Amino acid sequence: MAKEKKLVESITSMEEDFAQWYTDVVKKAELIDYTSVKGCMVIKPAGYAIWENIQHELDRRFKEVGVQNVYLPMFIPESLLQKEKDHVEGFAPEVAWVTHGGLEELQERLCVRPTSETLFCDFYANDIHSYRDLPKVYNQWCSVVRWEKTTRPFLRSREFLWQEGHTAHATAKEAEERTIQMLNVYADFCEEVLAIPVIKGRKTDKEKFAGAEATYTIESLMHDGKALQSGTSHNFGDGFAKAFNIQFTDKDNTLKYVHQTSWGMTTRMIGAIIMVHGDNSGLVLPPRIAPTQVMVIPIQQKKEGVLERAAAIRDELTASGLRTRMDDADKSPGWKFAEQEMRGIPVRIELGPKDLEAGHAVVVRRDTREKQVVAFEELADTVKKTLETMQKDMLERARAHRDAHTYTAVTKEEFKDMAEHKPGFIKAMWCGSQECEDALKEECGVTSRCMPFDQEHISDTCICCGKPAKKMVYWGKAY
Amino acid sequence: MAKEKKLVESITSMEEDFAQWYTDVVKKAELIDYTSVKGCMVIKPAGYAIWENIQHELDRRFKEVGVQNVYLPMFIPESLLQKEKDHVEGFAPEVAWVTHGGLEELQERLCVRPTSETLFCDFYANDIHSYRDLPKVYNQWCSVVRWEKTTRPFLRSREFLWQEGHTAHATAKEAEERTIQMLNVYADFCEEVLAIPVIKGRKTDKEKFAGAEATYTIESLMHDGKALQSGTSHNFGDGFAKAFNIQFTDKDNTLKYVHQTSWGMTTRMIGAIIMVHGDNSGLVLPPRIAPTQVMVIPIQQKKEGVLERAAAIRDELTASGLRTRMDDADKSPGWKFAEQEMRGIPVRIELGPKDLEAGHAVVVRRDTREKQVVAFEELADTVKKTLETMQKDMLERARAHRDAHTYTAVTKEEFKDMAEHKPGFIKAMWCGSQECEDALKEECGVTSRCMPFDQEHISDTCICCGKPAKKMVYWGKAY
Repeated sequence: MAKEKKLVESITSMEEDFAQWYTDVVKKAELIDYTSVKGCMVIKPAGYAIWENIQHELDRRFKEVGVQNVYLPMFIPESLLQKEKDHVEGFAPEVAWVTHGGLEELQERLCVRPTSETLFCDFYANDIHSYRDLPKVYNQWCSVVRWEKTTRPFLRSREFLWQEGHTAHATAKEAEERTIQMLNVYADFCEEVLAIPVIKGRKTDKEKFAGAEATYTIESLMHDGKALQSGTSHNFGDGFAKAFNIQFTDKDNTLKYVHQTSWGMTTRMIGAIIMVHGDNSGLVLPPRIAPTQVMVIPIQQKKEGVLERAAAIRDELTASGLRTRMDDADKSPGWKFAEQEMRGIPVRIELGPKDLEAGHAVVVRRDTREKQVVAFEELADTVKKTLETMQKDMLERARAHRDAHTYTAVTKEEFKDMAEHKPGFIKAMWCGSQECEDALKEECGVTSRCMPFDQEHISDTCICCGKPAKKMVYWGKAY
Repeated sequence: MAKEKKLVESITSMEEDFAQWYTDVVKKAELIDYTSVKGCMVIKPAGYAIWENIQHELDRRFKEVGVQNVYLPMFIPESLLQKEKDHVEGFAPEVAWVTHGGLEELQERLCVRPTSETLFCDFYANDIHSYRDLPKVYNQWCSVVRWEKTTRPFLRSREFLWQEGHTAHATAKEAEERTIQMLNVYADFCEEVLAIPVIKGRKTDKEKFAGAEATYTIESLMHDGKALQSGTSHNFGDGFAKAFNIQFTDKDNTLKYVHQTSWGMTTRMIGAIIMVHGDNSGLVLPPRIAPTQVMVIPIQQKKEGVLERAAAIRDELTASGLRTRMDDADKSPGWKFAEQEMRGIPVRIELGPKDLEAGHAVVVRRDTREKQVVAFEELADTVKKTLETMQKDMLERARAHRDAHTYTAVTKEEFKDMAEHKPGFIKAMWCGSQECEDALKEECGVTSRCMPFDQEHISDTCICCGKPAKKMVYWGKAY
C-alpha cells in the first residue's frame, strides 16, 4: 500500500505555497516524472492522455480551416538558421548543437530545431513557383528544444511538444487574415474545451517573436494571479520571404514575394489547466479534455451484486459515449475517492449495497463536490448533464476569478501598488515607447502581456511617462 | 500548367529501373521532398496523411491490447547509453551527438535517441518498486536519428518517424507472450490494412537487435523480389534490467528483476506500400489506408448540371463514410485521371453530360482499371463494395506474387543460382552457425531474413556446410 498512500497524502496547500502545490500536483496526479536528462521530463500516461486529447481537438479544428499536416527534419544547418537576422539573434543563444554524426565531426554544425521557420522557408523556396501553388497552409506536430537555464514541468522545459503552423500567401491581406483566424481557433479551443478564458491581443514590439512583423497572443490568468501566454500567431509579412528568396509568378505574370505566418500551441497548456482549475485536493479536469470523465467506485465491493452493477453502469455509460472506468482495486473507498480527486476525474459514481437495494447511485462532481442521488435508469442522462454543467461552470468560475483579479490603474503609484500587492492583470495606458516598458519591468516587475483587441480608454496619458497614450495594455507577472 | 504537366509525365518503368521508378513515384505522387539537411526529408501532405492513417490504425490496435502512450526525452546522456554493453556497441557508431547547449559546452555529451531502451530503463528503475506496478506497457510516437551513410526516402533516412513500445513484466513468460502478441498486432495490421502479406519468424543471433535475447520479425516481399523487414518485436529477458537495476518486490516478498520487451514500426511502411502495390502509372493505395478513397472527376464540367451533380455525389459518398474529394480544377479530364492514378487514389468516378442524362456515372478501380457503369442511386453501395473487393484483391495479388517468388533450395548450387537469377525469398535449411550465415552473404549476397514460425522440413542438412540442419530459414536480399 506504500505507493497508493503516497498518492493521496495531503499536498501542499496552494494558499501556502503555490509553486510547491503545482509541483505536488504534477507528481501526485502522475502527469510527469523527472529524468536523468537535466531539464527534460517524462510525460506519463495520465499526462500524455491529456495531450492526446488536446491534439485531437486542435487538429480537428485545424483541418476544418484547411490546414494540412507535414513533417520536416529536426535539424537545422547553422547557415540556414542565420539567414534571417532578427530570428537568429533571438534563437541562437538557446539552441542545442549537434557537432558529430557517428564517429565523424560534421562539416557544418546542426542545431536541434527551436522552431522551424527557417526549414519551412527553405522548403517553400523550392516548392512555390506560381500563384497556383498558394496558399500553403501546413502544420507539424513535433518536439522542439530550447536550452533553458531554469525549468518547470510543462511550463518551461528544454524539450517540449507542440504544433507549429507555417503558411505562405500571395497577399499581405490574406496572411493577416490567416494570422487572426488561427488566433481565434486557439481562443475558441481554450474557452470551449479547456474552460480557460483568454484575452486576445497584440504583443508590443519588445515582446514579439524574433523575425515577426506582428505577434498576436492569447493570455490567460492562473489561480495565483500570474499570466500565461497560451498561444501565439505571428505575421511575418515578406521578411522571411526576402531573406530566403521565396518568390512566385502571380496572375499578372510578375514575380512577387510570399507573405508568411506561423502559430503554435504547446504542452504548457497542461500547466494552464492545472493552474486555472486545480484545488487543494489535486487536479480538476474540464470534462471535454478529461481522458477519463467518470470513475465508478463500488463500495463494499465484495457484497453480492455490487461489482456486477458497477460494471454494468460503467458499460452503459461507455456505450452512451462517456469515457468511463471502474476502480475495483483492493483499496478502501476513501483511498479511491482521494485518487479520483487527485487525478481530476470530473465525476465519480459511488455505489454500495444500500444504493443497490434502493436502485440508485450517488453522483459526485469533482469541482463543487455536489452530490446527487440518481436512479439507475436516469444515470446516463444525469451524468451527461452534470458534465455539461460542470464544463460551463468551470469556464464561468475561471472568468469570474480573472475579472476579480483584473485591475485598472490611472496613476503610476496605483500601478506600483497593484503590481506589488494585487496579483493579476493591470490595465493601464501606454505611450508606445520601449523605455516605458523597460522602466515598468524594472520598477514594478511586470511585463506587457498584450495590447487587447478590445481597447478601453482609461486615461489620456501613459502610466509611466505621462506623455500622450497610444494603447491600453494588459500588464502582469508571467510564467 | 508547367507543374501539373510534370506530375503526369510518364515515370521510369519499374521493369527498366526499379530504384528510379521508386524515386519517381515518391516525388511525383508528392509524398516527400529533399531538404538542405543531408539524409533528411520533408514528408509532404500526401505522404504524411498516409502516416496519420497508419498511426490511427496502429494506435487503436495498441490501445485494445492495453498499451498506454507516454513521451520521453529525445536526448540520452552518453553514460546512460553505455550501460548495456551489446546495445551501445550496436548503436554508438551511428548516433548524432549534441555537445553544446546555447553558448556553453556540455559537461557530458548527449546523443539524439536512435531508440529509447536506455531511457525507458532509467525511467522504469525509478518507477517500478512492487509487483503492483507491473506490467508497464508503454509506447511513444516520435522521431529517431541514425547517422546512415546512404539514404533513401522512407526506407533509410537519418531521421525517421516511428512508434516504439517498451514493456516491463514480472515474469519471463509474460514478456515472451507480449513480444509475440505485438508481433501479431503488426502482422494483422499489415495484412488487413496495408494488404501486405508477411512471414512471421525469429531473427538469427547475427541479425537480432543489439541487447535482445530474441528478436521476432515480420518480413514482406517487394515487387522487385527484395525483402523488407517490416516490424520487429524484441524480448530482452532480464538483461537490461540487470544493467539498469530494475527490481521489484514480488508477492512472495523477494526482490526480482523485471523482464522487458520492445517493438517498433516506422515510416518505412510507406515505402513498402509503394513497392508492393505501385505500378507504372504511380502509387496504388489500399483503400483502408488511402487518405482519399474516391475522386469524383467531372467531364465537360462547364456543361449545365455536371459540377452540381458531381458535388452531390461527393457529398453523398462523404456522408456514407467514404473519404471522397472532387477535382474541379481547370484542367482536362485526362490530366485529372493521370493525377488521380499517380496519387494512387483507389477509385475514381467519371461524370460527364451524357452520364448525367442517362442517370449514371462510371466507376473505375485504380488497380485493375476495371470500369463499371453505375446508376446514381446505387453509387454509394457499389463504390463501397468495389473498395472492399479491391482491398481483398490487393492482398491476394501481393500474396500470389510473393508465393511465385519464393523458392526452395536443397543444394548450394541451386541456392547460388536462385540468389543470382531469381529475385525473391529462398527457403533453405541451416545448421545454426554464424559462419554459414557469413559465407552465404559473402558468396551469394543474401542475408537470413527469419526462421519462420511455420517450419518446413526441406532436407536434413545445412545448405552451406552440409552438417545436420537445425532450422529452415528464409533468405533474401533486403532493403
